[in-house]
Amino acid sequence: MKTYNNPAKNTWAAITQRPAKEANTLGATVKAVFEDIKENGDQALKNYTEKFDGVILSDLKVSQQEIDNAIPLVSQELKDAIVLAKNNVEKFHAFQKIEKKVISTVNGVDCWQEMKPIEKVGLYIPGGSAPLFSTILMLGVPAKIAGATKIVLCTPPSKDGTINPAILFAAQLVGVTEIYKLGGIQAIAAMTYGTESVPSVYKIFGPGNQFVTAAKQYALTQGLAIDMPAGPSEVMVVADKDADASFVVADLLSQAEHGADSQVILVTESQKLIDEVQIELEKQLAELPRQEVARLAIENSSAILIDSIDAQNELINEYAPEHLILNVLNEDVYLDKIVNAGSVFIGPLTPESAGDYASGTNHTLPTNGYARMYSGVNLDAFTKKITYQKITAEGIQNIGPAIELMAAAEGLDAHKNAVTLRLNSLKK
Amino acid sequence: MKTYNNPAKNTWAAITQRPAKEANTLGATVKAVFEDIKENGDQALKNYTEKFDGVILSDLKVSQQEIDNAIPLVSQELKDAIVLAKNNVEKFHAFQKIEKKVISTVNGVDCWQEMKPIEKVGLYIPGGSAPLFSTILMLGVPAKIAGATKIVLCTPPSKDGTINPAILFAAQLVGVTEIYKLGGIQAIAAMTYGTESVPSVYKIFGPGNQFVTAAKQYALTQGLAIDMPAGPSEVMVVADKDADASFVVADLLSQAEHGADSQVILVTESQKLIDEVQIELEKQLAELPRQEVARLAIENSSAILIDSIDAQNELINEYAPEHLILNVLNEDVYLDKIVNAGSVFIGPLTPESAGDYASGTNHTLPTNGYARMYSGVNLDAFTKKITYQKITAEGIQNIGPAIELMAAAEGLDAHKNAVTLRLNSLKK
Repeated sequence: MKTYNNPAKNTWAAITQRPAKEANTLGATVKAVFEDIKENGDQALKNYTEKFDGVILSDLKVSQQEIDNAIPLVSQELKDAIVLAKNNVEKFHAFQKIEKKVISTVNGVDCWQEMKPIEKVGLYIPGGSAPLFSTILMLGVPAKIAGATKIVLCTPPSKDGTINPAILFAAQLVGVTEIYKLGGIQAIAAMTYGTESVPSVYKIFGPGNQFVTAAKQYALTQGLAIDMPAGPSEVMVVADKDADASFVVADLLSQAEHGADSQVILVTESQKLIDEVQIELEKQLAELPRQEVARLAIENSSAILIDSIDAQNELINEYAPEHLILNVLNEDVYLDKIVNAGSVFIGPLTPESAGDYASGTNHTLPTNGYARMYSGVNLDAFTKKITYQKITAEGIQNIGPAIELMAAAEGLDAHKNAVTLRLNSLKK
Repeated sequence: MKTYNNPAKNTWAAITQRPAKEANTLGATVKAVFEDIKENGDQALKNYTEKFDGVILSDLKVSQQEIDNAIPLVSQELKDAIVLAKNNVEKFHAFQKIEKKVISTVNGVDCWQEMKPIEKVGLYIPGGSAPLFSTILMLGVPAKIAGATKIVLCTPPSKDGTINPAILFAAQLVGVTEIYKLGGIQAIAAMTYGTESVPSVYKIFGPGNQFVTAAKQYALTQGLAIDMPAGPSEVMVVADKDADASFVVADLLSQAEHGADSQVILVTESQKLIDEVQIELEKQLAELPRQEVARLAIENSSAILIDSIDAQNELINEYAPEHLILNVLNEDVYLDKIVNAGSVFIGPLTPESAGDYASGTNHTLPTNGYARMYSGVNLDAFTKKITYQKITAEGIQNIGPAIELMAAAEGLDAHKNAVTLRLNSLKK
């Protein structure tokens, strides 16, 4: 871990430079797969699944029987943990509903917004060594609360054609309406166009490798929406002199174990803490199963000594971390100043992993500086707001003349006429 | 205007087909302009402005002197109209602020969201025959309410190097922080990368021609956000048998006059109304300055007789109109069923032009069926929500064991360890 002592502001960008993202060169591959699936539907999906996942499937859809058979394979204690997490995620996201509130901007002009569901959504859950059932909670629960009528889940099958039982348990728990054994580009293409088996959706959510990311970008060009641009995960830990170095290191490593391109940054006023962290880092790394990956990430990462809290806040906002841990006793000197962050974890007993799994907040968050302009996934991401207005005779008399003038000045006479006719009807 | 009598559902998509969007073939042009501006800054901007706008500028930025000189050129009555509209837009968008509300998902686990501004935003206002000052209100007012510190406006200069006075009046009224004489691809590129004169921003808003649209798409690939995908404007008017045909026609033409690719659709249970509308259409068209454009749009458009209100609602949701006018006496049979629409105008005295200018709702809305998954521009569009959590000893004891189990099951040991260390510290 590189260390810096009160670096000059004009060096911050270089110090906190995120690992370079490879240019996306998968465009042609993605386009070819999408076009094949658009034209050949299920047969193309089965061909790609055979080719890339090494499985010959007769049915792409997971049957109720398969789900019923899988659920007893999940231990009761893991089920209880998932249910606890689901309940908290549900509470926090249900709490984000907005009530219809009407405002009369002038007498006779009532305006309001209402939250409505995105009716059909697609969730992508990667395969690989570990089953990411937690992401199913983070995406499926708000989809359900929003009121989606179709919640489609795609996840690649194992070599034996099955899906991990914990994935199936979480999916049925949150109310996923259908599950398909599909991974990679073909999963995203199937949900974009729809096939004989797989329905098309309006918006696609979820993490994935470079192929999935490129496929989601392509889906955007085909008229779908996606959750947000993807990038490697990152955490910034701000710690005061009283912070426990072992907590700090465990939090840094929680991020570092995600991948070699993860970035972790420690910001502190305490040189002593930095020294302790360096020692503790070696200790914890040595015991970590994913230490090889974590070591690569740590090489890209920095511990930055900054004496001034104001300067620390400036650095936080400039970096715009996906996860920000404030391992400090006095968070108030930070909270009001923070404008750019995905999710903020406050105090020594609030590890990032709480939000990753079970506190209730969402773990799908803006990376790569996108916290400057994107929210993490929340209820908003599964809804849109429709605006409404209802105008009375008094209302149109109050605002009509202004509309006529403005429309005329913009050269839009039909716009003006729509008001004039109504005002005239009221003069009769 | 084509007419249809209770068409079968499987023909709806064809009947309401939006005018085909030309494939974007401007990619190479856009990329070249962006790269030139990234490398050559202001000088490249001036070259493009000379080439495309026919103006040689010494300063790209509009000076305070220019603004002061222009304001007296706007008539007092137009100023008053703009101020009235601005006040209403301000009321409606300020009303969309959310208060911080904390929920304890379990004892000791407090979670909340806070709305924070997107600090730097760029607004693009097209040039051309009519000055679209109303769009400045729609974008500048929520930017200001959100708390943006930089609100950059780009708009192309006239041949004499000036900007329309009504544009300058609206810009200073809403609190735009700086105005540049830039149009087209070069404006979007300048706000993407920043130059010696023009600051870079995080998110770009505003309408534009195919060049601007392609440039905004390219800005997306360069790490910026944009308001939403662009498409031609559209309105669906649902009218009952009591609707005044002249109001219906004026509303249809308000949309049709925007462009030949605008789409307008009438849905009604009344054949009599359709007949009256056809006659009235000719009458109003004959008097419309932009009748040539409006006629082309009307050719692409339909009047659809549908007897059943349920079927009407299905069609509305399938089409997902940008603007939906419910020119009916009993709106209740529609409102609860509508899931997909941008902005809804309720009752005979609520023309779309009210929302275009002065009622307070926003006129930047999702076109092309994007109302299925996008909101129109609102306060959310200029903000993001940060999530926060603070966990006590009791809290981590309540959720810690579940996190340990889930993290272990996902193979993420450092995530587990971040909790284990904290739980252990509490046992001491």
